[in-house]
Amino acid sequence: MNTLQVELGQRSYPIFIGNNLLGDHRLLEPYINGKQVMVVTNSTVGPLYLDKVMSSLTAYQTATVTLPDGEQYKTLDSMNTVMTALLEQHFNRSCTLIALGGGVVGDICGYAAASYQRGVDFIQIPTTLLSQVDSSVGGKTGVNHTLGKNMIGAFHQPRAVIADTSSLDTLDDRELSAGIAEVIKYGLIRDPDFFSWLEQNMSLLLSRDTDALIYAIERSCQNKADVVAADELEQGQRALLNLGHTFGHAIETGMGYGKWLHGEAVGCGMCMAAEMSQRLGWLDQKSVSSILALIEKANLPSRPPENMTTEQFLSLMSVDKKNINNRLRLVLMKSIGEAIITDDFSHDALLETLNSY
Amino acid sequence: MNTLQVELGQRSYPIFIGNNLLGDHRLLEPYINGKQVMVVTNSTVGPLYLDKVMSSLTAYQTATVTLPDGEQYKTLDSMNTVMTALLEQHFNRSCTLIALGGGVVGDICGYAAASYQRGVDFIQIPTTLLSQVDSSVGGKTGVNHTLGKNMIGAFHQPRAVIADTSSLDTLDDRELSAGIAEVIKYGLIRDPDFFSWLEQNMSLLLSRDTDALIYAIERSCQNKADVVAADELEQGQRALLNLGHTFGHAIETGMGYGKWLHGEAVGCGMCMAAEMSQRLGWLDQKSVSSILALIEKANLPSRPPENMTTEQFLSLMSVDKKNINNRLRLVLMKSIGEAIITDDFSHDALLETLNSY
Repeated sequence: MNTLQVELGQRSYPIFIGNNLLGDHRLLEPYINGKQVMVVTNSTVGPLYLDKVMSSLTAYQTATVTLPDGEQYKTLDSMNTVMTALLEQHFNRSCTLIALGGGVVGDICGYAAASYQRGVDFIQIPTTLLSQVDSSVGGKTGVNHTLGKNMIGAFHQPRAVIADTSSLDTLDDRELSAGIAEVIKYGLIRDPDFFSWLEQNMSLLLSRDTDALIYAIERSCQNKADVVAADELEQGQRALLNLGHTFGHAIETGMGYGKWLHGEAVGCGMCMAAEMSQRLGWLDQKSVSSILALIEKANLPSRPPENMTTEQFLSLMSVDKKNINNRLRLVLMKSIGEAIITDDFSHDALLETLNSY
Repeated sequence: MNTLQVELGQRSYPIFIGNNLLGDHRLLEPYINGKQVMVVTNSTVGPLYLDKVMSSLTAYQTATVTLPDGEQYKTLDSMNTVMTALLEQHFNRSCTLIALGGGVVGDICGYAAASYQRGVDFIQIPTTLLSQVDSSVGGKTGVNHTLGKNMIGAFHQPRAVIADTSSLDTLDDRELSAGIAEVIKYGLIRDPDFFSWLEQNMSLLLSRDTDALIYAIERSCQNKADVVAADELEQGQRALLNLGHTFGHAIETGMGYGKWLHGEAVGCGMCMAAEMSQRLGWLDQKSVSSILALIEKANLPSRPPENMTTEQFLSLMSVDKKNINNRLRLVLMKSIGEAIITDDFSHDALLETLNSY
């Protein structure tokens, strides 16, 4: 088992990465302060792993909430379902919430933990590759609004994260690829060596080789932890982590939540950011080809959905959180391994990129 | 105009207290960072003061949300109404929300500000005495759940608070008395001299004498600011501010939100806490009589509603946030001006107190 510490002063916490970690009560107990523990999961993950997790919590008063599976349920209503369960079972302010599932479960459960009685502890057990490399670091929690993704939420750091690679065995291929999109992102924004490693080891990742997965998860989390430690509340450089996300969120919202997986939309969004960076003269043709090739090798879409128009993209992108004082800010690339946040670009380059599809 | 600084490190902010402060743009502008301002108010306060506030915001892109008036609307749905308005008008992460109204508007608007895009700025313009002396200090925001009051929320400090005593002219007598309940509370928990001042000046407060109001608001806010500065996240002594609230919340929930005003329930709750403190041998008969006399002089109820049973109280009190690990903690009194937080009391004293009504 590998351990990585996310350094955030008083809010620092460990990420445990390894095989067959679920059900080990010695990992959980040091991070549970009170006597009450509620596990929040969904209808897909619950039947697979809930019993194992519960078997490690026999020392506590426990309860569970099983939400329906899917991004379309990442709503204020689902958050309120968790609140109702907590109140019905008289959970107090020293309780701990455990998120068992992918990013959606983690985001809802984390926001519920941030909001219940104005904040209680929570622990993340991410069971998808995407949530292991993305939402397990950084403390972003929240739910969607019909008018925008992740528009309602809080920064709330977990006490600990347990990333068990054995939980990836049950992940379908499409979900695995969606997670790989975020892994590729770390290479693109700040780690060119990791990008090269991914070009060489993509087949191992797709075949779920345990060592390759552990390496990719740890290196991804380390990259994210470095960025987050320097800018916890996203006042500046943390926004680099949104590479591909402004285009990607527009796709997710435009298609309706749940049609494209988040990672698929981000994978495509990174290709769009690469193409736009080339139009601005910042990225060369060879790099763009390498990026598109790696995205496609990971079985991810490199082109946006045919039925989305340029107008739709522009409208959906203007409510994005990266948009400061109504000037559109995007994360673009200077080279593979060097991304920048900027609102200083030709609007034509954006239009040409969107029109090219 | 008097200015009081709430000292919370990077989150410090000023409270401006005085007459005819609404509409003065020089007070607001230093605390608005972006270009977008949304004023959240309710259907009672809006018609009275919204125009005046808007006239001081001509330099910004503005919008308003008018919520229905009443504690029964302090819900997640109302918070979502604010979110919808923010998204429909493309408000970005550097926007500012202004709460114009009483505690309900402040709590909903503050929680919306805490949650919108994971946190934006807000300014409070409390227009009731209760909100001027209570919710304007401390950063508690949130909404009610059908199973418990203030169970969903966040700690989110305002950038500034403007307490204008002229807005109290339109307050009805019942609301004024409800605010005085919280004023009396500060005397009871930590300021015996202020309690004596209130015994001598209650008639002036009830007749809305400006100087008496400004003095009472400033001294109340100073007392609260001292407590909050020492314990921002309510890990310990801040819970002293909940004197009367555990009984009071049970009354509000038991009667249905909106039937008893919050201040009325707290006023009664403080009498119940005093009676229970006497049964425990902590408070003498003379002090209890003085407390009940002052509460009654302020036209507040000193006895709980006739139709509430002991069983109902016990059931409703057990979900209170002050209840750590299922042991009931209460704020009780050792003397006038000295309250304590304790779970070390005879259960019989609680039962006898509840049964005595």
